[in-house]
Formats: sequence, structure tokens, C-alpha cells
Amino acid sequence: MQKATLTILGCGSALPTKKNFPSAQILEIRDKQYLIDCGEGTQIRMRQMGVKTARLGHIFVSHLHGDHCFGLIGLISSFGMLNRTADLHIHAQPDLEKILKSQLMYFCQDLPFDVIFHNINPRKNELIYEDRSIQVFTIPLKHRVPCCGFLFEEKSRDRHIIREMIDFYHIPTWRIPKIKQGEDFITEDGEIIPNNQLTTSPESPKRFAYCSDTAYSEKIIPIIEGVDCLYHEATFMEDEAVRSNQTEHSTARQAGEIARKANVKKLIIGHYSARYVNQYELLEEAKAVFENTVLGEDLTVYEV
Amino acid sequence: MQKATLTILGCGSALPTKKNFPSAQILEIRDKQYLIDCGEGTQIRMRQMGVKTARLGHIFVSHLHGDHCFGLIGLISSFGMLNRTADLHIHAQPDLEKILKSQLMYFCQDLPFDVIFHNINPRKNELIYEDRSIQVFTIPLKHRVPCCGFLFEEKSRDRHIIREMIDFYHIPTWRIPKIKQGEDFITEDGEIIPNNQLTTSPESPKRFAYCSDTAYSEKIIPIIEGVDCLYHEATFMEDEAVRSNQTEHSTARQAGEIARKANVKKLIIGHYSARYVNQYELLEEAKAVFENTVLGEDLTVYEV
Repeated sequence: MQKATLTILGCGSALPTKKNFPSAQILEIRDKQYLIDCGEGTQIRMRQMGVKTARLGHIFVSHLHGDHCFGLIGLISSFGMLNRTADLHIHAQPDLEKILKSQLMYFCQDLPFDVIFHNINPRKNELIYEDRSIQVFTIPLKHRVPCCGFLFEEKSRDRHIIREMIDFYHIPTWRIPKIKQGEDFITEDGEIIPNNQLTTSPESPKRFAYCSDTAYSEKIIPIIEGVDCLYHEATFMEDEAVRSNQTEHSTARQAGEIARKANVKKLIIGHYSARYVNQYELLEEAKAVFENTVLGEDLTVYEV
Repeated sequence: MQKATLTILGCGSALPTKKNFPSAQILEIRDKQYLIDCGEGTQIRMRQMGVKTARLGHIFVSHLHGDHCFGLIGLISSFGMLNRTADLHIHAQPDLEKILKSQLMYFCQDLPFDVIFHNINPRKNELIYEDRSIQVFTIPLKHRVPCCGFLFEEKSRDRHIIREMIDFYHIPTWRIPKIKQGEDFITEDGEIIPNNQLTTSPESPKRFAYCSDTAYSEKIIPIIEGVDCLYHEATFMEDEAVRSNQTEHSTARQAGEIARKANVKKLIIGHYSARYVNQYELLEEAKAVFENTVLGEDLTVYEV
């Protein structure tokens, strides 16, 4: 089975710490990589983890605060030096294109690949990207500036064909893809073999939601309902609820509340304020509300 | 005695590695800090080293390749969040002001301090900054784009007053600063006590030169002659001399040659190409020419 994984490159907030770089993570699904946010030092974290980026074609940027996008220019610049040739797609609010293009014109004049901007509207919940493997939807969030999360929905996987049945019915190779997609098989004698005798069900497709930065917002619940894995910011603990409200961030407890109400399978918290040296306190706070919570940590790979 | 120190935050080259961030270092002298270059992740390295930046007022940028300046926007942005109020001075080529100002306007609208740009001409060897403690001069370098190094010259230090003489001649406190600066003392009886009976010589003022990025250039020798410490780039080894020439960088041997011909007291090499996993090979190559060579390493403090 192909696993879907989430690699956290940085899960700090605005001020980096010894442990945490600013926001960046890679979702890897069906052998493709999707970068979500790109704080300062993202390319450094990739190097530290030995992440190969040949299969990275799309970057999704939640909002235009520096800790979510200052790493883009360095990453693109290095892709240029590494002679990348594949197009690089950036899905972000229109302002990013203006800001980044002027930097690209100055620092990266001879890029051997194209950087293609796709404007997104963070206020809408809509499909913004689709390929053979996944669909990506925006999730409107509640933050000081326009901001959206992203829902990654894997498409249905092929059914698993039962090896012995291929031999038994002498199924030719060219028929196999269709059978994997659900077709019955007709033998040379005209006998119809129903698909469910030839195949077993595939794993259910994975769903991952990224929600950062955001104040507590129940509006996102119907969108992320039941996802396999939710990454939700938990900048503060309840002791800083006032500040959390003012800055339109969430507490760890609130992240847990959202996970519980949306019936997600797993919650990963992150985007910690630099003030919390012992992040396990944040984990405990979230776990008190939603048991299957995991502490997001830099340089760590999670199964989705 | 007050030491002068050099803190290397990053001594990698264009592509960061597991070990090396892009260029950035802090010269600390007489309780003031001067940041030289500011590659991506500079603020992160500062955090990792616990560097306090209250005494950092001036940043010197050698040239406008990304690995020497992509960290500025993040650093300034964080200074804002940390409620810095002191002006921040940036000494760089005029283009940087244009590039950075548009980013500052977007990302850092309410900075509680001013960012003041001082244009430098990298083709001239001239005084660009002076305070009570030091003078800073540009050093024209030879690179693919206009680029200069920086020579930091400490001003003469005060003479050391001999404690016993203060008591013996009943020297009043208010006279001490002048005596430290070389004045004689006249007793109440009119006796002239020559300064050299009252004081001892101070340590000779420190001189530090930063030369990165540059091809081998003997033109810099008269400028850096005899400095206490030279940081000179050593991007390649002699095995890559052709590539070194093409890209207008130096080999470790060439860095050693410059140090030897300029009679410097100590050479620190850095700006290593990502291809060298074992950097001690670069050190050996430089040492073969100039014995007192030290391997520059990230997160390390050197005495100047």
C-alpha cells in the first residue's frame, strides 16, 4: 500500500526558536509532493532531512505573513542553481505574485524553469487544483489577514486484482487496468466474471486538512469532517486565551475542540508561540479534549 | 581586556547544507555588534546561538546575491515583533533599498524603529562608517556582480592607568580620562609627572577584514595588510580551479596565498561549496600555504 505522509519542516510561529522553524510542510501522496507554506529556512530544512524535491511541483501558501512565505525566494533560487527544469506552480493570493516577481526578476533572471502563479480566493471553499491523484480545496479561515487552509482529498484508488484470478481465467494484461477500475471480465466462452470475484476493495482514499493560521472557527467543521489527519494551529494555551483571541490564533484546547467536533481521525498541532519551551503542555491541553492528538515537531514524518 | 570576537552564523555558499547556512557573521568589538551579510536563516542561527541583538545597529551587505541578503526581511520583521526601537542601519548597494523597501511596505508596515539605508560603492576603497570605536572601509572585490568586502579597524584604545600611581599622586577621579588619553599630570606642587610613569600601553587596536565573495585578487593586499584576522572565501579546492575561475570564487589555496602575501595574523576560511563534505581538506589546502588558517564553522565564535 502506498502511504500518505506529512513531513513537518517547520511548525514554529512568527518567531523561530532553537527547535522550530517557521511554517512549512510537505504532503507526500501517491509519489507526488505538495509543499504547504514556505517560511524562512524551508530549503535548509529540506536539506537537513535529505528531502528530494524532484516530485514537488505545487506550493500552496495559506496567507501572506512572512513566517509562511519568506522562504520562497531562497527555495526557488536554489531550484534554479540545481538546474530544475519542471514548472513550479504556486497557489497563493494575488499579492504574492507581485512581491515575488520583482524579487525573481532581480535575483533569478535565468531560471531554467517557469514559476506559474495561480491566484486563490481565501474567502471561498472551492476546488483550486486537481491532478490524477488528488483534489485540493481552500478552507476559509479566520485570521488578521485573509487566510485559508487547504483540504487535500485523494481520489479513489484502483481496486486490487487477485493474482490467482488472472491465472485462473487467463486474463490478458491489457484488460487489467479496466478490471482494477471495476469492470467485469468476459471469458472467451462468453462467461461473465463479476468484478467482485476478481478484485478486492482498495484502501479508502486519504483526506488531509491544513488549518493555519486561524482563530477558533466552527465554520470549517463541515469542510474537514472526518479527515484522516488534521493539522491545526495551536499557537497558545488557554492561559493566553486573551492574546490568542486578539491575534486571531487558536489555543491547543480549541484545536482539540475542532478535531473532536469534526470527528477527524488524528490531530497534529503546531505553530507554537516561542514562549512555550515545554510543548508537551500544549499536547496535554489538546489531548484533554481530543485523545488522538500528536505533537507536531520539526524534522518529523507523520503517517496521514 | 575587551576581546573582539567573530561569530559565524553561516559560512556555506549558495546552496545551504546540513552543516552550513548561507553567509552571515557578527563582529563584536567594544560591546557593539556589526552584522556582516545576512543569508536566509540568519535570525534562526541567532536564536540557536542565543545571540542578543540589543547592541546590533549596523548591517553590512557585501553584494546582492541571495545567499548574502535573503535573511534581511525575516530578521527585520522579527526585530519588529520583538519591539526593537533603535534605528537599524543597512550599508549596501543602492538596489537593496529598492528591493527591501517594497517588501517592508508590505510585510512590516508598523515597525517600531527606522530602517536607514546607506548606499555604498563597492568599486571604491573608502570609509563608509565610523563611530567611537571603529571605522569601516569597503574593499573592492572581484566577483560576477559588484561586490565588496569590509575592513573593520578599531580606533586606538585608552592607555591603562597604573592603580598605585593614582593613590601615590592623589590623582582626582576627574583627571583620569585625560591621563588615559595620554596627558601628563601636574601635582598641587606644580610637579609634572610624565604620562609614561602613570600609564602602560593599551593593546593595539584590532583589524578584521571580510572578503567574500571574490576571485583571487592581489589588489586587496595593500588594504588588508597585517590585519589580525582575515575571513576569506574558499568556495573550492584546486581540483575545481576551472569552475572557481569561471564563477569568480577562490580556492582554499588562493585564500592562503592572499593571507600569506598580506601578512595577516590569522586566516578563517569559509563560503564552502556544498560539494565538499569533508571541509578539512579545504583547511589542509589553505594551511599548506598559510599555516595559521582556521576552518570557519557555523555556530562558532572566534577570537579576532
